[in-house]
Amino acid sequence: MCAIFGIYGHKEAAKLTYLGLYSLQHRGEEATGIVSFNGKKSCMIKGRGLVSEVYDEKTLASLKGHLAVGHNRYSTTGLSSSKNIQPFLVNHRKIPLAVSHNGNFTNTVRLYRELEKEGAIFQTSMDSEIIIHLIVKSKKKDIKEKVIDALSKIEGAYSLVLLIDDMIVAARDPYGFRPLCLGSLDGSFVVSSESCALDLIGAKYLREVDPGEVIFINKKGLNSQIAFSSPRRSFCIFEYIYFARPDSSVFGNAVYKIRENLGRALAKEAPLDVDLIMPIPDSGNHAALGVAKEARCQFEFGMIRNHYIGRTFIQPTQFVRDFRVKVKLNPIKSLLKDKKVAVIEDSIVRGTTSRARVRTLREAGADQVHMRVSCPPIKFPCFYGIDFPTCKELVASKYTVEKIREFIGLDSLYYLSKEGMLNAAVLPKGNFCTACFDGDYPVKPAKKFSKDILEK
Amino acid sequence: MCAIFGIYGHKEAAKLTYLGLYSLQHRGEEATGIVSFNGKKSCMIKGRGLVSEVYDEKTLASLKGHLAVGHNRYSTTGLSSSKNIQPFLVNHRKIPLAVSHNGNFTNTVRLYRELEKEGAIFQTSMDSEIIIHLIVKSKKKDIKEKVIDALSKIEGAYSLVLLIDDMIVAARDPYGFRPLCLGSLDGSFVVSSESCALDLIGAKYLREVDPGEVIFINKKGLNSQIAFSSPRRSFCIFEYIYFARPDSSVFGNAVYKIRENLGRALAKEAPLDVDLIMPIPDSGNHAALGVAKEARCQFEFGMIRNHYIGRTFIQPTQFVRDFRVKVKLNPIKSLLKDKKVAVIEDSIVRGTTSRARVRTLREAGADQVHMRVSCPPIKFPCFYGIDFPTCKELVASKYTVEKIREFIGLDSLYYLSKEGMLNAAVLPKGNFCTACFDGDYPVKPAKKFSKDILEK
Amino acid sequence: MCAIFGIYGHKEAAKLTYLGLYSLQHRGEEATGIVSFNGKKSCMIKGRGLVSEVYDEKTLASLKGHLAVGHNRYSTTGLSSSKNIQPFLVNHRKIPLAVSHNGNFTNTVRLYRELEKEGAIFQTSMDSEIIIHLIVKSKKKDIKEKVIDALSKIEGAYSLVLLIDDMIVAARDPYGFRPLCLGSLDGSFVVSSESCALDLIGAKYLREVDPGEVIFINKKGLNSQIAFSSPRRSFCIFEYIYFARPDSSVFGNAVYKIRENLGRALAKEAPLDVDLIMPIPDSGNHAALGVAKEARCQFEFGMIRNHYIGRTFIQPTQFVRDFRVKVKLNPIKSLLKDKKVAVIEDSIVRGTTSRARVRTLREAGADQVHMRVSCPPIKFPCFYGIDFPTCKELVASKYTVEKIREFIGLDSLYYLSKEGMLNAAVLPKGNFCTACFDGDYPVKPAKKFSKDILEK
Amino acid sequence: MCAIFGIYGHKEAAKLTYLGLYSLQHRGEEATGIVSFNGKKSCMIKGRGLVSEVYDEKTLASLKGHLAVGHNRYSTTGLSSSKNIQPFLVNHRKIPLAVSHNGNFTNTVRLYRELEKEGAIFQTSMDSEIIIHLIVKSKKKDIKEKVIDALSKIEGAYSLVLLIDDMIVAARDPYGFRPLCLGSLDGSFVVSSESCALDLIGAKYLREVDPGEVIFINKKGLNSQIAFSSPRRSFCIFEYIYFARPDSSVFGNAVYKIRENLGRALAKEAPLDVDLIMPIPDSGNHAALGVAKEARCQFEFGMIRNHYIGRTFIQPTQFVRDFRVKVKLNPIKSLLKDKKVAVIEDSIVRGTTSRARVRTLREAGADQVHMRVSCPPIKFPCFYGIDFPTCKELVASKYTVEKIREFIGLDSLYYLSKEGMLNAAVLPKGNFCTACFDGDYPVKPAKKFSKDILEK
Repeated sequence: MCAIFGIYGHKEAAKLTYLGLYSLQHRGEEATGIVSFNGKKSCMIKGRGLVSEVYDEKTLASLKGHLAVGHNRYSTTGLSSSKNIQPFLVNHRKIPLAVSHNGNFTNTVRLYRELEKEGAIFQTSMDSEIIIHLIVKSKKKDIKEKVIDALSKIEGAYSLVLLIDDMIVAARDPYGFRPLCLGSLDGSFVVSSESCALDLIGAKYLREVDPGEVIFINKKGLNSQIAFSSPRRSFCIFEYIYFARPDSSVFGNAVYKIRENLGRALAKEAPLDVDLIMPIPDSGNHAALGVAKEARCQFEFGMIRNHYIGRTFIQPTQFVRDFRVKVKLNPIKSLLKDKKVAVIEDSIVRGTTSRARVRTLREAGADQVHMRVSCPPIKFPCFYGIDFPTCKELVASKYTVEKIREFIGLDSLYYLSKEGMLNAAVLPKGNFCTACFDGDYPVKPAKKFSKDILEK
Repeated sequence: MCAIFGIYGHKEAAKLTYLGLYSLQHRGEEATGIVSFNGKKSCMIKGRGLVSEVYDEKTLASLKGHLAVGHNRYSTTGLSSSKNIQPFLVNHRKIPLAVSHNGNFTNTVRLYRELEKEGAIFQTSMDSEIIIHLIVKSKKKDIKEKVIDALSKIEGAYSLVLLIDDMIVAARDPYGFRPLCLGSLDGSFVVSSESCALDLIGAKYLREVDPGEVIFINKKGLNSQIAFSSPRRSFCIFEYIYFARPDSSVFGNAVYKIRENLGRALAKEAPLDVDLIMPIPDSGNHAALGVAKEARCQFEFGMIRNHYIGRTFIQPTQFVRDFRVKVKLNPIKSLLKDKKVAVIEDSIVRGTTSRARVRTLREAGADQVHMRVSCPPIKFPCFYGIDFPTCKELVASKYTVEKIREFIGLDSLYYLSKEGMLNAAVLPKGNFCTACFDGDYPVKPAKKFSKDILEK
Repeated sequence: MCAIFGIYGHKEAAKLTYLGLYSLQHRGEEATGIVSFNGKKSCMIKGRGLVSEVYDEKTLASLKGHLAVGHNRYSTTGLSSSKNIQPFLVNHRKIPLAVSHNGNFTNTVRLYRELEKEGAIFQTSMDSEIIIHLIVKSKKKDIKEKVIDALSKIEGAYSLVLLIDDMIVAARDPYGFRPLCLGSLDGSFVVSSESCALDLIGAKYLREVDPGEVIFINKKGLNSQIAFSSPRRSFCIFEYIYFARPDSSVFGNAVYKIRENLGRALAKEAPLDVDLIMPIPDSGNHAALGVAKEARCQFEFGMIRNHYIGRTFIQPTQFVRDFRVKVKLNPIKSLLKDKKVAVIEDSIVRGTTSRARVRTLREAGADQVHMRVSCPPIKFPCFYGIDFPTCKELVASKYTVEKIREFIGLDSLYYLSKEGMLNAAVLPKGNFCTACFDGDYPVKPAKKFSKDILEK
Repeated sequence: MCAIFGIYGHKEAAKLTYLGLYSLQHRGEEATGIVSFNGKKSCMIKGRGLVSEVYDEKTLASLKGHLAVGHNRYSTTGLSSSKNIQPFLVNHRKIPLAVSHNGNFTNTVRLYRELEKEGAIFQTSMDSEIIIHLIVKSKKKDIKEKVIDALSKIEGAYSLVLLIDDMIVAARDPYGFRPLCLGSLDGSFVVSSESCALDLIGAKYLREVDPGEVIFINKKGLNSQIAFSSPRRSFCIFEYIYFARPDSSVFGNAVYKIRENLGRALAKEAPLDVDLIMPIPDSGNHAALGVAKEARCQFEFGMIRNHYIGRTFIQPTQFVRDFRVKVKLNPIKSLLKDKKVAVIEDSIVRGTTSRARVRTLREAGADQVHMRVSCPPIKFPCFYGIDFPTCKELVASKYTVEKIREFIGLDSLYYLSKEGMLNAAVLPKGNFCTACFDGDYPVKPAKKFSKDILEK
């Protein structure tokens, strides 16, 4: 996953982009970058690490201009070169073009091969660079037409912010896989992956960018068109379950509320007889509160989160088992001793982390440990931007729920039904992509690629 | 405040100390250090910053030995030299002496002056260095007697861990201001400011180190004596209110439980008529849950904490008001809109942070904002180790509750009574130091010093 | 100026390239880079700073492969982006192409414009990137033909080393402006700007790469062709005067010997009546020795060079006049006191440095200071790779020799004649470019460009 | 060896100290430090590395005050702690005391033991700290008397600069082992190891500090006394041979001139029949010139020194023999081919470096290689500050000249006689310490210590 942000028409464009990226940090922790433009000169800062580490007062001050785009990159395996940090920027015929991209193209390999055949030279392995080449190569006259022409060649999931000369472009693929919203601040326009970034900078939330919509923002104002239509919507439901911040509005609804709905649905589907309901903090907080409300059972903070976890810590030798879990979350022994406990998890991927957490709860003295998961079993990989592992590593792809319960070491395990999840998500059911649960992929990925992943 | 940790008799002494300091990070974020000894050679690593930043695999591996002491230092103004990072280590007559100290001596100036008159040369301005000089200068024959002789000259608050040759010494002042507990792990002994450090390394909690007790741990085992007696106990009640981790046991009781008690007491003393109870996360979580339980009112997460806040961030210009608060805590607008809200704060020091938080809640649409504080008004500075500002900056030292309510911008404000607080704290009332609330200082500080602070 | 180096067929290709660059450091101090290839994967390390600063044991070890190319970059104004460090590397259709370039194209702007019109996207402002685009766009079938096709489009000065897949290519423009030589080591072939790099790695000097020659080196061995012919040779005579290392062989002759010849010619053209001859160490050493031998006058070390000058030092305030000169070169007072001194300079550019040096000699007590310069007055900029300033800043472009003598503060000043210089340089006169002295440019630069520079 | 520098009465005291240390870099490359005082507050900067690396504009600007002392430390084995960097500074009873020291005490161990017995706590293993303790413990009333009292307890070699409150003290041991000179600049007084530092800052050289002299400089001016007398002078003759800069005046004479004398004496003692005389640059330059003048033989630069050698470089594998020598000094093949060459070395310690150099000369084609050394064989260690190895590693301590000639691979080898050396050094013979040549130690070191070293 990634975070994207753009702003047009503010004298502190780069600083506001920095703040926007700060509040979107949860969408990508590996690297971050900002490109700004003042009508004459484009400036760029990029680096590995958190937003708080990469930028400083001095470098930010060097990012002059009234428009800017930014990006946070999620950790993905293998592509460690610093050239692969976004935004991707080139100056073509003295005009700057920069791209921030969230999502995954499904026809990357073909596009890449065709462009190279025509003599294109690639610097990176990023989808963003492909977009730039497609724009530059387009035979259309007008730059706006060139952008739409380029996007028409792309298949798959994308939410994009482009900086092209003195203009910001926001675009979302026809299925609307990834979120993107529009706001305004003191007469300037802002584009952001989630609304929490608008809150921080004090911008007003206007609306979602529509699937298939391309928005051009320049000194004349905002100009929008639905450039691409599609038979269906395919919003990523996992944004609601885990990815987005609970204080954001995504796909038009408050994330916290849908998480609470998921918890209430869980309580209805699988009644509990326990002494207390506890979340895995902080991602499970709202779902756990939903369960507690619906089940009229006591909500408690059974584990305390250590706020000082650096991104690397030194593993002691064998004798501290489950150290990585323990250093983040410490159970309160005196609260848990001899209790029947229900733990609310947002999702289970490999199962190993849940297993370690349950083990520490038992070591802390819990008598029974029950787990409720606020989504169905994840059985399939995602081709649209979420970094699930291959099927081989997805525990629910290989084992039954009973086997998983046993592996994690639970007294009981219940996953929310797909029906229950979709009901909790408020919007009409057909509007969501649920491929990770049911394998129904709205856009087919290139064959060789998907085969490798699905059968691995 | 500071964190101290020591271990004797484990082949991974330094790594365990590192882990202990990791879990005690909340007691001091400015600097950290570890000294280890393998019977022949002492090793030391010190640095500014968090535990996760100062140590790495390689440096930790260089800390050889079966005993070690560590320290985390709280940010205090003015003493920025890196020489002032603890533990303080010297090699005297080829024997290593190292000190980790939590607390504040009240007769520092006099001790310092006397020692200099005798030709002592000081490297630092730390209390720890004074202890070393007192031990080295002691006329007693035996090293244990020297330690007790040295401690007998010190007035004020201290919890100490010393490494002296092949021995660890743990000591606590006769009043017991600051916590210190004892644990065991695989036959080795561990000393720590709080029990959460024992949890992380899998050590067994044995007991508190008693006020006035001095414990010597070496290859012969553990040897303890009550070296100093005192007319009263003076446990710092602020450890329960704010400082200690909720999953720790401090002064013999579970911290989370006493916080919940404080919340319940608040609910009883000042009934509420609101739509929801919300904590300032995470320090107010347990008190808020206590209020909600007692008042049978709905507990909600009204603000979302950003987990990525680095220690420095770049302040945007004026137009983002209350930025420092907003970047840490974002209110959920759709939850708060038109609601009557009660916010639970653990304490109010200057009042400016609470004011900014309340302002963001109102901007998010809250109809009424009431505040409940889980301790009485803080009116006096602390001479025993907590970094409260001078009276001039303590808002409750200058203003009435009504004035403070107005300043913060609340619909109502209620502070827990001293009586209610002491009842919630379980132990007999006389066992606590409540000087910050009532100015009753168990150990008088040197006159000039206290006058300056109190009248400033 | 820049240094280039390449090697094919040695298992320590990158380490040898590192050593080669070490000994070619004088040709470029700003930045350095190495690209290696092992038949499967290309690796690159680049950075600002000296060779000794940019590489370390670990990074060098990561440069696997049996072929490598390297580059040192001279400080040039304005292009400070780290993207502009060479070698320039791309992977096109899974094949690595890397370029190290010394020289300057004279038709850069036109090539750049044409390529962009065809949709090429440029990452840098370097000539090297243009070469890559020209190769990739070439319609020729064979890669060797593509290279020659690309070079045929380029005008100006270049000595090049390319890494293309499992092949090293060495090429020199038809005029032969910049040096390039060929060596062998244990069956592998080496290409280097100067022969001193061959000495350091113990390689055998084979011959110069000829003007217009393109050499392909791969697993089948070395294959060469004269791809381009030209009406004349235009070797840069300034390589002999200042740029090359005295222990190198350049354009087929020993540099030290030609410097000594220049000194002897000076002594003949302008007899001296002084107490001692002294060089500006170390660049004037050999010319000064030549003067001393021919004039039968005593050679002395009148100034001592400080070997510890870092690349930045802190300027004290006004009161230390000529500090930058003094900190590098300290005159020996007791040697110079009341003496008539002749100082040998290799060349004068702006005149300000010479002026400061002469001032310190006078302050040290010299009675008379005469200067002899081992080349004629530099009056014109260089379009082929040497960073002379614009005419406006070249002191000899604006003033007569008498005025310059006065400005520098000398008792006498004599520049070697062009005739004398060319005789000293051994090769036939027509073989050299002397444009910086006489404005006779062998290849005309693009009009607008040259006009700006020449009239500035 | 080390460099010391001090200045009193200049508003840019720290910057001038920085410049002084810059020009004294050759006396110590491992670490450097400056302490300044403005009458109220002392400031200190210390660090490992060269002067050009440790200080920057900002840190230097923080060194306020009109007096300062500085130090460069030579690399010595084993004592790698950054605490051991000088100047050593303490604030005692609110008064700053700082020491910069060049030399070695011979009664360190006894002093250390006595002070610890009295309760002194040492932070470092430096002689400088002992001086501070001795001053602070002195029973004398006046600070000047305390200083002299402290120095009276010290045996061995020292040149010292102390900063005590608003006063600079310069002192030299009664034998005068290490140099120290006095200068003036704009009414302020300057003390420096060598006069080259005075040159750089434009100060006037006044005189040497006399052996046994203690000079006090404060706002009343300069006050001096010969505090200690001794039966003899023992100036370190190795300062002339190798250590001091040739442009300095040391012990009252120009260093370059004495080096030239040493060369002339060599030529007289051992006539040469060779084609050319060459120095090992730059340390042998002046002696080689002396030989060439006296022998009327041609002086040539046979080896070129690489000016870019960083302090670490990466050793290639075996196949580049003598790499460390080659990367520093490259012989000019075309000059040396088939020539009879005489190389002038200042001294031979282990013999391994000379051996490698001679090997590269032969590989470059020299027909005969003769070596002349401008001092006698070094057979004994130094107890007064020069880092010679133990006897075991001194090649002349174990082998005859003939054996050494064979080991190095020479056609002939000749060492200057002790008689010849002393004559060349101008001052009366009895004024020098020649212990490294003849084992005649003016001050006996503690027995155990010397035995270990001498027999090792």
